[in-house]
Amino acid sequence: MPDAEKSKAIVLLSGGLDSATVLAVARQNFECHALSFDYGQRSLSEINAAKQLAELYTINHQVVRIDTGVMTGSALTDASIAVPDVVSEPEEVTGIPVTYVPARNTLFLSYALAVAEVMESKDIFIGINAVDYSGYPDCRPEFINAYEKMANLATKAGVEGNHLRIHTPLIDKSKAEIIKIGDGLGLDYSLTVSCYQANEQGEGCGNCDSCQLRQKGFEDAGIADPTRYF
Amino acid sequence: MPDAEKSKAIVLLSGGLDSATVLAVARQNFECHALSFDYGQRSLSEINAAKQLAELYTINHQVVRIDTGVMTGSALTDASIAVPDVVSEPEEVTGIPVTYVPARNTLFLSYALAVAEVMESKDIFIGINAVDYSGYPDCRPEFINAYEKMANLATKAGVEGNHLRIHTPLIDKSKAEIIKIGDGLGLDYSLTVSCYQANEQGEGCGNCDSCQLRQKGFEDAGIADPTRYF
Repeated sequence: MPDAEKSKAIVLLSGGLDSATVLAVARQNFECHALSFDYGQRSLSEINAAKQLAELYTINHQVVRIDTGVMTGSALTDASIAVPDVVSEPEEVTGIPVTYVPARNTLFLSYALAVAEVMESKDIFIGINAVDYSGYPDCRPEFINAYEKMANLATKAGVEGNHLRIHTPLIDKSKAEIIKIGDGLGLDYSLTVSCYQANEQGEGCGNCDSCQLRQKGFEDAGIADPTRYF
Repeated sequence: MPDAEKSKAIVLLSGGLDSATVLAVARQNFECHALSFDYGQRSLSEINAAKQLAELYTINHQVVRIDTGVMTGSALTDASIAVPDVVSEPEEVTGIPVTYVPARNTLFLSYALAVAEVMESKDIFIGINAVDYSGYPDCRPEFINAYEKMANLATKAGVEGNHLRIHTPLIDKSKAEIIKIGDGLGLDYSLTVSCYQANEQGEGCGNCDSCQLRQKGFEDAGIADPTRYF
């Protein structure tokens, strides 16, 4: 689609594999504005990866700082809780993982909603997927549907009849399928960071849940894994 | 109710007349944790009023700083848009007021949801009312109902069957009715600030929409107005 005909979309971009793929998908049909969050996560290398991706695609990139006092009680933000090393297979997930951050996607989407309203955009993209993270309540399609309904009642756009949409192009995809999509769009996955405890250079540990899901994804996709490990 | 039997509630406390009344109501049956937001609003005197109210009631008070780059395009946060002097009667409201802040209540409730989840509370109080502010899409009962549904799908509490509730005790009340409720609970309204452009001492202008609605409320309630004006 020619750039001049594209309407604006807000893309939640963490700098991880999933959100980078979503950006590669969204930019085909939308003029993208990327949003990243600094919420006291242990690893800031993800945000640096998001910056690099935004530069690569020459799109606007906004980093929103979220008051870190709010999000405690998760292994991703709280240094007193250990990040688990073992990979959780979806069928083994019985409870909610310790890496769950309270109301994270709700808060992220609500910021995206505010930005969308200011920028007169009615399209928000988020890279959640229900398959790999079945333990997180806010990664399920029923959550997204309920959020979209709420968003259309909350905003000017919704009230004025411009249906606001939350796009989740990865929601039913496996990690391997996601990687194939991005690979097909020429996305350089070596720029993305998935590790819960990546170092400043964006290198992963290779052991945490997230690293192992990523490795398995490349393996299953039959695509060479460009991830850098420390 | 004895304090030991009370469960925890999160109360959104701006320091205005409505939210102060909600706090007075909520503290009868809940152990309250008050949340205020510093989002680049022109007047910080509201937050100071919130602090004083929390001290008076000896409850926890948390001020969350919201990245101000997000919320532009409103007369309450943008110095280039004039705050209107004339009072908008509900029946005259045809569009959405310029004082509308993009997705404000959605964002505030989402922070409250994160805090509620961390504190294991399943009750959130917000002082919105549909009568006086009929021009704001995010002050309507249908918005709150949709938000509550979404919140129960988004969170641990909801998934585990602990129904999370958004309480709006003022939703169908007029300003006069609200004032009567607070007055009946012994609330000192001189501590509260409603003015869109209050000075540092918490004194109001007496001319803006919010000041005039407040004045009329005390008049209609037949209660002496303790508000301080500059």
